[in-house]
Amino acid sequence: MRIVVDAMGSDHHPVPDVAGAVMAAREFGKQDRLILVGDRARILHELSKHNATNLPIEVVHASQHVEMSDNPTRTARQKPDSSMLVGMKLVRDGQADAIVTAGNTGAVLTLATLHTLRRIRGVRRPVLASLIRVENNQLVVMADLGANPDAQPEWMFQFGVMGSLYAQHVLGQPRPRVALLSNGEEEGKGNQVVRRSAALFANSTLNFIGNVEPKEVLQGAADVVVTDGFVGNIMLKTLEAVGAAFFRVMRRELLRNPLRILGGLLISPVLRKIHKQIDPFEIGGAPLLGVNGVVIVSHGRSNAKGIKNAIVQARRAVESNLIEAIRQGLAQYINSHEGPSPARKLHRPYLARRRHKRVNA
Amino acid sequence: MRIVVDAMGSDHHPVPDVAGAVMAAREFGKQDRLILVGDRARILHELSKHNATNLPIEVVHASQHVEMSDNPTRTARQKPDSSMLVGMKLVRDGQADAIVTAGNTGAVLTLATLHTLRRIRGVRRPVLASLIRVENNQLVVMADLGANPDAQPEWMFQFGVMGSLYAQHVLGQPRPRVALLSNGEEEGKGNQVVRRSAALFANSTLNFIGNVEPKEVLQGAADVVVTDGFVGNIMLKTLEAVGAAFFRVMRRELLRNPLRILGGLLISPVLRKIHKQIDPFEIGGAPLLGVNGVVIVSHGRSNAKGIKNAIVQARRAVESNLIEAIRQGLAQYINSHEGPSPARKLHRPYLARRRHKRVNA
Repeated sequence: MRIVVDAMGSDHHPVPDVAGAVMAAREFGKQDRLILVGDRARILHELSKHNATNLPIEVVHASQHVEMSDNPTRTARQKPDSSMLVGMKLVRDGQADAIVTAGNTGAVLTLATLHTLRRIRGVRRPVLASLIRVENNQLVVMADLGANPDAQPEWMFQFGVMGSLYAQHVLGQPRPRVALLSNGEEEGKGNQVVRRSAALFANSTLNFIGNVEPKEVLQGAADVVVTDGFVGNIMLKTLEAVGAAFFRVMRRELLRNPLRILGGLLISPVLRKIHKQIDPFEIGGAPLLGVNGVVIVSHGRSNAKGIKNAIVQARRAVESNLIEAIRQGLAQYINSHEGPSPARKLHRPYLARRRHKRVNA
Repeated sequence: MRIVVDAMGSDHHPVPDVAGAVMAAREFGKQDRLILVGDRARILHELSKHNATNLPIEVVHASQHVEMSDNPTRTARQKPDSSMLVGMKLVRDGQADAIVTAGNTGAVLTLATLHTLRRIRGVRRPVLASLIRVENNQLVVMADLGANPDAQPEWMFQFGVMGSLYAQHVLGQPRPRVALLSNGEEEGKGNQVVRRSAALFANSTLNFIGNVEPKEVLQGAADVVVTDGFVGNIMLKTLEAVGAAFFRVMRRELLRNPLRILGGLLISPVLRKIHKQIDPFEIGGAPLLGVNGVVIVSHGRSNAKGIKNAIVQARRAVESNLIEAIRQGLAQYINSHEGPSPARKLHRPYLARRRHKRVNA
């Protein structure tokens, strides 16, 4: 297996990106190769710090890299030799099986969807899924994390299908419980998109358990939680923000006097455990589902451990044949509807426009 | 001043509702009367436990009460003598200045908006605002908390105006910073509603500071945070859920061995401080803004302290002449637009339908 790592992706590139690749290479066997894409001189300089000469790591040079401030829709044209684009082309052309990047998420979406890997046939919108660790250490797939701020019901349904296949194939959950994030469990709660999506889920063969509130998400009531990209992003950012605020307040208050410092030392295993639970880098990254290739997007602030865990996740997705499962699964679940859904009908004018555009282009 | 307390509102009614009213009456002077509405016998029984004979508390009998499971839109017809409806009529008829209830939020909205107090002239949709305490103990007004899961941009703008007036008049912030909750600070981020709302805010005389992410909300970057009712509800429930999960994990882990128990005792002031910060009952309740009267909705699980704090909040709203401020303020901010906004235009067919319906009814 060959996994591309965008060496110029993270905020502190190429330091954590290269270090994470080295960690993964040490853990993997010789049969798994890592391909670091980016500024060759800087990558080699980083590699030289790690005594990595015997590891199965190659370097592919790319003279540019995407910045966080770059406009995602223009980056393909403005930076044709960016490490992200070069890396994705390797996956597209079958020279690699997956790509891990901690770069600009908007650019990942655009370059993967429109310029290289493209959508799997039948996929309305690719979705950025995220793994969160909830009580009892259970991993929950949340989708969408932000790729589709204004989602249509049928896209939401596909987020559920792809999320469920991810939970099944990559996380090994035999029959994932799929739920819609809502402001109340009762049927009829939710905004319009949620209520319309619920009808599609209820008529499918997915293991749909209905609406869940944030409390139930954190208690592990569902394995896959479906939201539009705006709400999902707000919920995930709220989780991150509360965790950060908690540790900030804790640190400040514990350092106030010697007794508290002592108390803090005594409970430090507890604090470390909680910190580990909410640390996004423990998990690795967010899979972009619905394109023809394994793409894992790491947090821009990722450290080496975060990159390494994203690489591990990418390997698991390739091993489990995730992309093929989504190809087949989508067809199956779509056929499980009887005839076109109302959402599908609503959607047609849009599709017509798109087709028209393509003919003109 | 006379404040109605729905004695049958909370999950454990009338116990915390009556106890909260007694606490408030003890704190207030003789000039402020509390009116407990509900089952007279049960209220008097509760009052007898509190040695409350000399306090300025009256009881008004109501033979029914709204349950959490009642359908909000039918409750006016099905329960014409509910404590909530009787209490609101007292406010409507000028026999009281405000009402505090921990009852069914949907019923509060319906009874206040459609059956008793009705909307202030020009208000598109009343909004349930919520106060959250963020770092540095600052209070932030979040609106909407759930009254309008699918909000139009112009409603969102009015949420901002009313939230700003609340922050100014009740919380005493001279020039509240108003922001839109979004998935990124940059202009152009957000879903459609947020992007369209931003244009209305930017053209107004409000102190609009742009988009804020959850992190900035918790750091106190804004005094008023505007969202639609779905997103606001998800964010608030996430905050509550994380707080509860944190204390659950903390308790379980601290009780594992004697050293941790000791550590927990040493840092207990810190834990209490954090608990107090995230305890919704410390603040009291959520004001329903945009109707002709002061309405404060407490959490169904409120304890006596929660009810008492909601009563204190109601008194402050009456003292500060909040309703009159909203009446005048709305007119002013609406005039500050030059001509009808695009959102207003979009909205017209809906208004036309409503008027039509009323004529027919």
